[in-house]
Amino acid sequence: MEICKIYLKKKEEERLLKGHSWVFGNEIDRFEGKIKSGDIAYVYSSKGEFIGKGFLNTTSKIFVRLLTRNENQVIDKNFFYELIYRSNKSRVDLGYSNSYRVLFGESDGVPGFIIDKYDEYLVVQILSYGIDLIKEMLIEILVEIFNPKGIYERSDAPVRKKEGLELFKGTIYGEVPDRVLIKENHLDMYVDVKNGQKTGTFLDQQDNYNAIKPYVKNKDVLDCFSNIGGFGLHALSFGAKNVTCVDISEHATNQIKENATLNNYKVETVTKDVFSLLREYQTEGKKFDTIILDPPAFAKKNDDTKKAYQGYKDINLNAMKLINEDGYLITCSCSYFMNPALFMEMVMDAASDAKKVAQMIEFRTQSKDHPALLGSDESFYLKILIVRIKSL
Amino acid sequence: MEICKIYLKKKEEERLLKGHSWVFGNEIDRFEGKIKSGDIAYVYSSKGEFIGKGFLNTTSKIFVRLLTRNENQVIDKNFFYELIYRSNKSRVDLGYSNSYRVLFGESDGVPGFIIDKYDEYLVVQILSYGIDLIKEMLIEILVEIFNPKGIYERSDAPVRKKEGLELFKGTIYGEVPDRVLIKENHLDMYVDVKNGQKTGTFLDQQDNYNAIKPYVKNKDVLDCFSNIGGFGLHALSFGAKNVTCVDISEHATNQIKENATLNNYKVETVTKDVFSLLREYQTEGKKFDTIILDPPAFAKKNDDTKKAYQGYKDINLNAMKLINEDGYLITCSCSYFMNPALFMEMVMDAASDAKKVAQMIEFRTQSKDHPALLGSDESFYLKILIVRIKSL
Repeated sequence: MEICKIYLKKKEEERLLKGHSWVFGNEIDRFEGKIKSGDIAYVYSSKGEFIGKGFLNTTSKIFVRLLTRNENQVIDKNFFYELIYRSNKSRVDLGYSNSYRVLFGESDGVPGFIIDKYDEYLVVQILSYGIDLIKEMLIEILVEIFNPKGIYERSDAPVRKKEGLELFKGTIYGEVPDRVLIKENHLDMYVDVKNGQKTGTFLDQQDNYNAIKPYVKNKDVLDCFSNIGGFGLHALSFGAKNVTCVDISEHATNQIKENATLNNYKVETVTKDVFSLLREYQTEGKKFDTIILDPPAFAKKNDDTKKAYQGYKDINLNAMKLINEDGYLITCSCSYFMNPALFMEMVMDAASDAKKVAQMIEFRTQSKDHPALLGSDESFYLKILIVRIKSL
Repeated sequence: MEICKIYLKKKEEERLLKGHSWVFGNEIDRFEGKIKSGDIAYVYSSKGEFIGKGFLNTTSKIFVRLLTRNENQVIDKNFFYELIYRSNKSRVDLGYSNSYRVLFGESDGVPGFIIDKYDEYLVVQILSYGIDLIKEMLIEILVEIFNPKGIYERSDAPVRKKEGLELFKGTIYGEVPDRVLIKENHLDMYVDVKNGQKTGTFLDQQDNYNAIKPYVKNKDVLDCFSNIGGFGLHALSFGAKNVTCVDISEHATNQIKENATLNNYKVETVTKDVFSLLREYQTEGKKFDTIILDPPAFAKKNDDTKKAYQGYKDINLNAMKLINEDGYLITCSCSYFMNPALFMEMVMDAASDAKKVAQMIEFRTQSKDHPALLGSDESFYLKILIVRIKSL
């Protein structure tokens, strides 16, 4: 096989040497050999030093996704087996067992591939052309390591189109039920892996669900953008007095009720738009001790950041007005364009407009099974700020 | 009494309206009334709107430290009683009981005053002239709320000189032993409240000591800049195989041994400079599964940041070289000049030079009893990054 060699423009190797694994088309100076999507390309600096090799995709803006920095490394089944095995082991060592992210793409050295474990089932997401080509081999590996009852593919993320891949979802091994019963920390939860958010639910918040314990006992809690009830039901498990879960989707609030029943909790659900509900509650004079805001990503690209900032500020400001003196706001942003500094600024800005003082009690990130790769900003996306609210 | 009124220059009120409580001398346009250090000054915007009132100090660059935004609020014993009582209650509600920070100055609405609880004793630090003047009244309040066996004052921070105050330390109420036996989480620890770091020990790391649990079980752990052994002894309590604690001070390593004995743990201590020891270990080919770096603040003022960056990078880079594949680095910075973004950049930079990949597993901050005031950057000073280290 004729090897494809890619030489970068001057100094374009710097980001890659810091651990980032994407080579963009516009960083490339010249090619040698045959260029074919799905082949392994060898990447060199402008001076001809070997940097790494990985899958090539001529359709994508991300021309190469590096898999290894070792020139002699054979990219075969054993290579991927080891990466997946090791990534899984790191999670098990941290204490994860029933449901967790096994492999988080770039961060775990396999760009464009995500593996989530839901009890005895696996859900995978394939976001790069090279990985898509070796899907059958990857299924074999997963069966060998996990012996799952079934594997479901949730390759329905629009970003696949940029790779020249069609959207796809379906069972790719064994059988997968419509709803999988998982353990989310100490709670039983039904998860719809076929149609739920992301690969079924927000596994990236699992550690944060546990972290709300000090802020909910004997409290009146409002959980906004509840999805299937992760934050709200955890609040009940930690002794909250009352929990109201709000989601605009009736499908979501139905799932919350079902999951509440499953755990023998009584929860109040409201099927409404959070933006308007927070205003209604102000008019009614309603108050809460703790409010949780876990909205979807308001900024999906950098251009949206300004508009997203206003959206985040709106809900944060209006939530703060509903919080009793010395109560808590637990506020999240899963958009990596809202970087930590900007997110904190937004919360401060909201506090200022609401004539409140915000004491930062905790700054948290995505769960430990969703590691962020330093040097790859995209992978650090989830921020959780826990603030105590006082009147100015 | 003739009231002192201070009018700010145009737009200088903005920071104050966001919750910051310091009025700098150079922000002031004009005065009315009598200017006397220790008196309560009323602060107004350039347009004459009331902003807040607080203690005046003509000697300090910080001319006024606001105590309230309410023009009619009487600043009397009851005012301070309520603030301290409420601040303490917020800690007790979060689960703190034996030893914790009761009041964190500006963040809790009492600029220049710190109260730490060590079992049945209190240690206070007074960093502003106004607070120093009402010390006797504050002692009365503390006795009423806590009924402590003794109160020790640790006003030996050099920053006091900027307020025109002499350094002071001594027992100001009851009796205080040289060493106080406290519960730091589940561990027994002797703390030297009279000569130890800060007010005795690093209470601001207490939550983080608990957070290392997933990263130390059955591991070989190196704890650098150990002080009295907080991280190291917690590692042993969580099942670490071996723990080596390093501190340049023999007084510190002696305390570590004593605290280890107290808890029935066996710890290895090394009395050496961490910078050189990390290099020695490389020469010897020593390896660890988990390394903890909790250095003193390398940057104490903004000018030092560049030099501090190099210092942090040096220890982080050299620690990474000693970490086994898929091991952990738990790295701290307590200098607020190393802001979170800069700190993360430094760790990435160190990883790059060490030819390692750093996966961020957790980003943590100071303990929950040390709240940071959003809008007051100085109060968010402690960053803890937990990264998994792999070869590039």
